[in-house]
Amino acid sequence: MKNFRDLIRIGVIGGGREIDSKTWNLAYEVGKLIAEKNAILVCGGLGGVMEAASKGAKENGGITIGILPGNEINEANPYIDIPIASGIGYMRNLMVILNSHVVIAIDGQYGTLTEIAYSLIYKKKIIGLNTWDIEGIIKANNPEEAIKLAFEIIKTKSEEL
Amino acid sequence: MKNFRDLIRIGVIGGGREIDSKTWNLAYEVGKLIAEKNAILVCGGLGGVMEAASKGAKENGGITIGILPGNEINEANPYIDIPIASGIGYMRNLMVILNSHVVIAIDGQYGTLTEIAYSLIYKKKIIGLNTWDIEGIIKANNPEEAIKLAFEIIKTKSEEL
Amino acid sequence: MKNFRDLIRIGVIGGGREIDSKTWNLAYEVGKLIAEKNAILVCGGLGGVMEAASKGAKENGGITIGILPGNEINEANPYIDIPIASGIGYMRNLMVILNSHVVIAIDGQYGTLTEIAYSLIYKKKIIGLNTWDIEGIIKANNPEEAIKLAFEIIKTKSEEL
Amino acid sequence: MKNFRDLIRIGVIGGGREIDSKTWNLAYEVGKLIAEKNAILVCGGLGGVMEAASKGAKENGGITIGILPGNEINEANPYIDIPIASGIGYMRNLMVILNSHVVIAIDGQYGTLTEIAYSLIYKKKIIGLNTWDIEGIIKANNPEEAIKLAFEIIKTKSEEL
Repeated sequence: MKNFRDLIRIGVIGGGREIDSKTWNLAYEVGKLIAEKNAILVCGGLGGVMEAASKGAKENGGITIGILPGNEINEANPYIDIPIASGIGYMRNLMVILNSHVVIAIDGQYGTLTEIAYSLIYKKKIIGLNTWDIEGIIKANNPEEAIKLAFEIIKTKSEEL
Repeated sequence: MKNFRDLIRIGVIGGGREIDSKTWNLAYEVGKLIAEKNAILVCGGLGGVMEAASKGAKENGGITIGILPGNEINEANPYIDIPIASGIGYMRNLMVILNSHVVIAIDGQYGTLTEIAYSLIYKKKIIGLNTWDIEGIIKANNPEEAIKLAFEIIKTKSEEL
Repeated sequence: MKNFRDLIRIGVIGGGREIDSKTWNLAYEVGKLIAEKNAILVCGGLGGVMEAASKGAKENGGITIGILPGNEINEANPYIDIPIASGIGYMRNLMVILNSHVVIAIDGQYGTLTEIAYSLIYKKKIIGLNTWDIEGIIKANNPEEAIKLAFEIIKTKSEEL
Repeated sequence: MKNFRDLIRIGVIGGGREIDSKTWNLAYEVGKLIAEKNAILVCGGLGGVMEAASKGAKENGGITIGILPGNEINEANPYIDIPIASGIGYMRNLMVILNSHVVIAIDGQYGTLTEIAYSLIYKKKIIGLNTWDIEGIIKANNPEEAIKLAFEIIKTKSEEL
């Protein structure tokens, strides 16, 4: 846990319901790459893209935070190390953004759209992988490119400070 | 205040910053028509579209509820009858939706986008006037059409019950 | 609805479960007196003390706001004019305080205790009628005295401005 | 991080302002003992009792979660490993409770009182060290006893399952 606090946090957002295998693979790969970069994965802690990405991170030595809508930490998917019960329902979508340095959106429906919009309100850079087409999203063509972009953004930010 | 509780509530969402005169007029007109229909206007209580619509409602005998992001009810624009301090920042965007029977989106930026998405998550019908192009929004061409659509939706809903 | 916004708001807090007839009568009387003073009653919108006080206000020409824990405005007791769905569970206890100029606590259990403590954190004067014995509460012996104290506090505050 | 999720979480609540050296020592010792028991310390992430307990945990190999009122994770005191920005102000007091298996209250003022009351609402056992005298609190005379009681409660709970 040394310097745990200094680790970069990458938010991963996307649909919580059934997702197709292509989307699952994208999310898993993003989680895996986050782990390999020694960053923390932050997500909403439930199923679908959140679970696939968390699994990818956990099976590759990563650390995962899941910010849940309900009152119970055991609602989290099995790949969440640090479940946080928010108790505020889908308002917690903003909490996922507030707790990420950069955000990657994968697929997703209306919940993901709230998170994309909150990212843009709070000036968190957001990278899109096969997701909503909203002005302000930085498009990536594959997980590798998404992660590359994410870390370039973080590097630029820290050099600006 | 007779039967105040039974009045229909129409949410009006849209940008809180500077808006152009065309958008101001659209919002004012929507507020006016809500008042003429004897419905309550619900909004985020601040400036821009929220203020124009509230002014339209108030100057035509309507009633306005403004659900504010901060801790102080006096943050509300001058046309809000019932300011509600939420204390939860922009998570209050969901509260605006929860407290509306139908929602009308006018222009708007990312904050409005969160509200559009929350409307669609919570199965509240949303009518769009010159706003984001998101699947699920019912497009209207002018304030009259928006209000006509809103009350048709409410009528259909109440007949279903 | 003229000058609705300028009306004083008195928060009434107390147990939401079964209450005995003595407590019911205290709460009803407080609601009645708030109505007679032409102030708005603000409460958590549910049963017990909240319902008794709201009934007292409504049956005497008053206006009531109920800030609810859930997502649905129809959870409110029948005497609430303006139900507000907060969607944030018992964190809404703070919202009841933020939306009141002065607070009157009647009986109550742990939920009431959170509201008493939030009142004291946010420097809202709180008057107690047969409630928790917490430093900072101004004790009243009966509803008349509670209302008298509440309006003296508001008068002092407005003269200080 | 093996089995991180299965670790017991002990909430520590208490005043965030200046505290005297006796209270600081109590809080530090509680944090130290939590670390020695290999449990996670959960707190509000700010100063006073929260900082003293976090320091006690960190300097003894423990792990700390701090659930902050604001939007920025860097508001946390230096001994927080996992800061969580809630963005909901002092409503986050309930989140501290929701994320703890058992709670220990040390000294404290009105903020602590909201947390004590929320613990009792949500049926989380709460142990008190020189804090508010509220029915339902289990009193401890020193940090060792507080920790002993906390783990007895957790043991009993897990045996009941």
